[in-house]
Amino acid sequence: MACSAVTGAEQVRGLIDGLDAEAMAAEMHATVRELYPIARSITGDGLRQSLRILQAIAPLSLHEIPTGTPVLDWVVPREWNLEAARLLGPDGEVVVDAASSNLHVLGYSVPFRGKVSLEELERHLHSLPDQPSLIPYRTSYYKEDWGFCLSHEQRAHLRPGEYDVQIDTRLADGSLTYGELVLPGESADEVLVSAHCCHPSLANDNLSGMVLAATLARLLRGAELRYTYRFVFVPGTIGSITWLALNEDRVERIVHGLVVACVGDAGRLTYKCSRRGNADIDRAVAHVLAHSGEDYEIRDFTPYGYDERQYCSPGFNLPVGSLTRTPHGEYPEYHTSGDTPDLVRADRLFDSLQRYLEVFEVLEGNLTYENLSPKGEPQLGKRGLYGSVGGRSHAVASQMALLWVLSLCDGSRPLLDVAERSRLRFPDVQRAASALEAAGLLRVVNGTGGGER
Amino acid sequence: MACSAVTGAEQVRGLIDGLDAEAMAAEMHATVRELYPIARSITGDGLRQSLRILQAIAPLSLHEIPTGTPVLDWVVPREWNLEAARLLGPDGEVVVDAASSNLHVLGYSVPFRGKVSLEELERHLHSLPDQPSLIPYRTSYYKEDWGFCLSHEQRAHLRPGEYDVQIDTRLADGSLTYGELVLPGESADEVLVSAHCCHPSLANDNLSGMVLAATLARLLRGAELRYTYRFVFVPGTIGSITWLALNEDRVERIVHGLVVACVGDAGRLTYKCSRRGNADIDRAVAHVLAHSGEDYEIRDFTPYGYDERQYCSPGFNLPVGSLTRTPHGEYPEYHTSGDTPDLVRADRLFDSLQRYLEVFEVLEGNLTYENLSPKGEPQLGKRGLYGSVGGRSHAVASQMALLWVLSLCDGSRPLLDVAERSRLRFPDVQRAASALEAAGLLRVVNGTGGGER
Amino acid sequence: MACSAVTGAEQVRGLIDGLDAEAMAAEMHATVRELYPIARSITGDGLRQSLRILQAIAPLSLHEIPTGTPVLDWVVPREWNLEAARLLGPDGEVVVDAASSNLHVLGYSVPFRGKVSLEELERHLHSLPDQPSLIPYRTSYYKEDWGFCLSHEQRAHLRPGEYDVQIDTRLADGSLTYGELVLPGESADEVLVSAHCCHPSLANDNLSGMVLAATLARLLRGAELRYTYRFVFVPGTIGSITWLALNEDRVERIVHGLVVACVGDAGRLTYKCSRRGNADIDRAVAHVLAHSGEDYEIRDFTPYGYDERQYCSPGFNLPVGSLTRTPHGEYPEYHTSGDTPDLVRADRLFDSLQRYLEVFEVLEGNLTYENLSPKGEPQLGKRGLYGSVGGRSHAVASQMALLWVLSLCDGSRPLLDVAERSRLRFPDVQRAASALEAAGLLRVVNGTGGGER
Repeated sequence: MACSAVTGAEQVRGLIDGLDAEAMAAEMHATVRELYPIARSITGDGLRQSLRILQAIAPLSLHEIPTGTPVLDWVVPREWNLEAARLLGPDGEVVVDAASSNLHVLGYSVPFRGKVSLEELERHLHSLPDQPSLIPYRTSYYKEDWGFCLSHEQRAHLRPGEYDVQIDTRLADGSLTYGELVLPGESADEVLVSAHCCHPSLANDNLSGMVLAATLARLLRGAELRYTYRFVFVPGTIGSITWLALNEDRVERIVHGLVVACVGDAGRLTYKCSRRGNADIDRAVAHVLAHSGEDYEIRDFTPYGYDERQYCSPGFNLPVGSLTRTPHGEYPEYHTSGDTPDLVRADRLFDSLQRYLEVFEVLEGNLTYENLSPKGEPQLGKRGLYGSVGGRSHAVASQMALLWVLSLCDGSRPLLDVAERSRLRFPDVQRAASALEAAGLLRVVNGTGGGER
Repeated sequence: MACSAVTGAEQVRGLIDGLDAEAMAAEMHATVRELYPIARSITGDGLRQSLRILQAIAPLSLHEIPTGTPVLDWVVPREWNLEAARLLGPDGEVVVDAASSNLHVLGYSVPFRGKVSLEELERHLHSLPDQPSLIPYRTSYYKEDWGFCLSHEQRAHLRPGEYDVQIDTRLADGSLTYGELVLPGESADEVLVSAHCCHPSLANDNLSGMVLAATLARLLRGAELRYTYRFVFVPGTIGSITWLALNEDRVERIVHGLVVACVGDAGRLTYKCSRRGNADIDRAVAHVLAHSGEDYEIRDFTPYGYDERQYCSPGFNLPVGSLTRTPHGEYPEYHTSGDTPDLVRADRLFDSLQRYLEVFEVLEGNLTYENLSPKGEPQLGKRGLYGSVGGRSHAVASQMALLWVLSLCDGSRPLLDVAERSRLRFPDVQRAASALEAAGLLRVVNGTGGGER
Repeated sequence: MACSAVTGAEQVRGLIDGLDAEAMAAEMHATVRELYPIARSITGDGLRQSLRILQAIAPLSLHEIPTGTPVLDWVVPREWNLEAARLLGPDGEVVVDAASSNLHVLGYSVPFRGKVSLEELERHLHSLPDQPSLIPYRTSYYKEDWGFCLSHEQRAHLRPGEYDVQIDTRLADGSLTYGELVLPGESADEVLVSAHCCHPSLANDNLSGMVLAATLARLLRGAELRYTYRFVFVPGTIGSITWLALNEDRVERIVHGLVVACVGDAGRLTYKCSRRGNADIDRAVAHVLAHSGEDYEIRDFTPYGYDERQYCSPGFNLPVGSLTRTPHGEYPEYHTSGDTPDLVRADRLFDSLQRYLEVFEVLEGNLTYENLSPKGEPQLGKRGLYGSVGGRSHAVASQMALLWVLSLCDGSRPLLDVAERSRLRFPDVQRAASALEAAGLLRVVNGTGGGER
């Protein structure tokens, strides 16, 4: 077990070292652009079509959950599909048309055709006075309503008169779709990666996350890993609630998890801890970010945000955090027509991908070892692990890693503790542990111990 | 139980919101002025008279404990009463007269009449070289002595010659008096409020505390509260020791407590934690002060100070802190003739009163709840607790309070933990809990849990 | 037990107060100078001769452990003795001669006589390009090699040609020598003081430590102490490993320990915590340094350094820290010919000695007491422990110490906790505890409790 477990971390390291940065960055960004125009929602064909595009990256399976299925405190809603949505002005001119931007229609608008005065129309319009040139993204999933979203500039110029509303949507029994891919590992313990897929033409939130998750799945598919990796692509809130309801008996297998979103903008990486706050995933991400050489931020859990709200709800309390770049709501283009593929930078998307892999490297390698020669230091020199000339002022880093592993690995703490305490990089500590294990000075005590705390 | 408990916090909130600031401030200050001239000590008629004046505010009962009663390691001393105390100079002129300020006589001076030289007199004089215009407050409770206190300026001009000492005090078997008022609540668990009443003409220390405690009692009398509130008005040290000795078998009912003193000066509020350091009372006061919008200070417990010294002695170790404005010994007028009613500001006295009530609001509402729909978020929208249009960047504070309560209330922690963790104000968190309870999403697990830790 | 225990701390205090600073500083420094020229190594006559010089200070016994003895993961090496070592240049001129500085020969050089070209010679030379005027200290204990150490300036001027190497060393079966002295105390629990003795002409590292340890032993010999004190003088690494191997069954008696080294330079005192990190020794040293009035530093444990590496190895994990001035490797003269007796300042050596004694004072006095009158404050006045005139603003420090001891000594925590919490100096707290014990208000609960945590 020890051997293959070490192999897990080493295989992830191999994946990282083998990445062709430019090619992969370009490829990911191309998929973001491909997905961008599709009219997604929490149900419907836009969602299905998007998941099928992701199937070209990794072979996720699609699940269809019928309308009316009770899921925890919720019920799977009717399926919504947008045919067309246009607003014609007093002179018959086209005011807005969902064909030009699917943000123009309030998500889950009920079908409506009719003439309304400007006064009545105003009650169905959504705009952003503080960002007058941008179209907002708005929805009304759980209250029947129709509406249009438009720039405040355009709204300000609407003339009095009668407007012709042509909202052709279908809101009918159908199903909620989600995608899932499981990569079995040596252990039944799972690492969950979850991305929400319900946003229409919004690129950073969350086409970036969908593409990053699918690319991770593609990369990890070829490796022999310690953990089982489960990727889920769900509509926000209702999708994760549906998944949790259908998998209630096996969520306890999830020992680490990340919600992926907003991973392509130019901002720094930001990690929001799990509700537990000091889960292994929280510590692993903090370690990777601390050694990333880039600016970053770690935040405490809050019950607002993405699907970690559901995974971390007290009845599940899964060790699931969220690793984003600029968090939701904190970049000006958030949930507006400004969140285009241009906002997503290929190099940042790739940087995020690398960090996710580095986190998996830590999780895979975070075994608990026991020093088999714990009384005094073992003589490393005779085993070829130590320089022969003594007297120098400082030990080199690789020798410090050996000494730290021998000192701290007493069977009571996993390797990440050693990295944290020694302030060495996890891969260096992991390599030292491998060398000592090969020399017969160390053995694995607990192959999947990380998730139990 | 849940209902009436919630009512406790809401009733205190109602009291706070219903206060007539100016009238109450004026009324409290008037009582400080009324009490000021009385010659109080740790026993005697001045103390009795003062407690009777407080009876006009709240119906406290007076207890008389006879001289010689053993109380813990101490014995109730003889009763001391001051008839008159004058010092006449070589030419028969009046040097000091207790009739003009009762600080002039050393507290517990034994009766003495006789002529003494200036040299001998000096051994019985107390003055403040660093504050030459002020009369100090000095006592000699447990060593028989007599003496005069006077300004250093006056002392410096005393001429050689024979002085006529006329100290007419009575030091004889009698009793120690203390006042007490119990407001029974739903629970037998008690909140203790203790004020020392033994200082003669000193206004901030502690007429301010006596009046504030009595006013709190008056206000709470009309409310239906979760806790039983016990107000004790005792002479310092010996009074609290006496009370503890007589109530040794029921002190364990005290689950929160505050010693009230120095609550009228212009300084910021200062809280001295209980010896436990993280008792609920410590956290409740810290929370109230942190959200007060004013400067404040929190200090660790020390074994010096007021009657918290006794309540927190290791054999009792009660969760009793002390909420003052400028602490004892730290304002220049402390224990001098400068501590007059003018030092007590009516508005600060009222501000202190409000904060005490806010602390009680927290204690009353600090229940432990359990989310009854802990798997995933319950659908708040269908219960009218959540806005219907989605997509906005930020949740409003009231919705955040709902989410925090649902996230953290898993039956393991009281509501104050939720307020601390979320950085929301306790009343907002408490309102969210009430709303969720009313919607059937929350239930009280432990109505009096706070005091058990 | 209480009495003699208190006496332990008081006796150490007496030793400190009775020290003749100038005389002792001069004496210690003279011994450093006497030891300086001797050619020490991890075995051999130089080590023996040095330990015999220390016997003039304190009667340590010498132990000889034969070559080949298995000690933990190691084996006692052959004994090495240096007869002479010279390097002659192409013209027969003396390039370096160990007679002028024993640093010139690589420690544990095998015997070698022969002519070598400059090119071949270079592979056996050690110098410091960054400190070109200094001779480095280098060894090759566990790989057979020979070599010379010299200044980089000299090395740069070596001319091409044939060099005559004359290394007359003996590397043969013999023994490893270490010194030991045990001062039995009331308890079998031990305080370990360990100094490494294997460095040749290097004064601060570690003649300063050897002399300080021997002087401590001399001073403590006359006292009746609570703990047993064990002083060991060992060659670095292999010596402490040997000692641990031979004493494996009794190392658990060591409840506190310090590794002494680099205690004479002008730098500030630096304490490296034990691997446990919050052992009593760690807290005792931190307390002494915090109240020393001098700059100081506390560092976490690392598995690099002196013999604490062995004592703190996970199989032993002894509560052993290291109190030095400038730590190893951090002063420019470290392990070079610049570490002469002039680098060791007599007054700093004496200052270090004092701090070690102050640490022992804390360890000796760190008993756990129980307040026998824990309900309310006991009446200190009637026992002569408290001033009789009341009303003053502040209690004096000695009265605060009494109150703190009464407040915190509930049988659950040792006296050092009281000193830490109250921020009073340990000797003041200890005196207060003695006074209260004498008054019958306090009793010792646990005479040797400190080491058990």
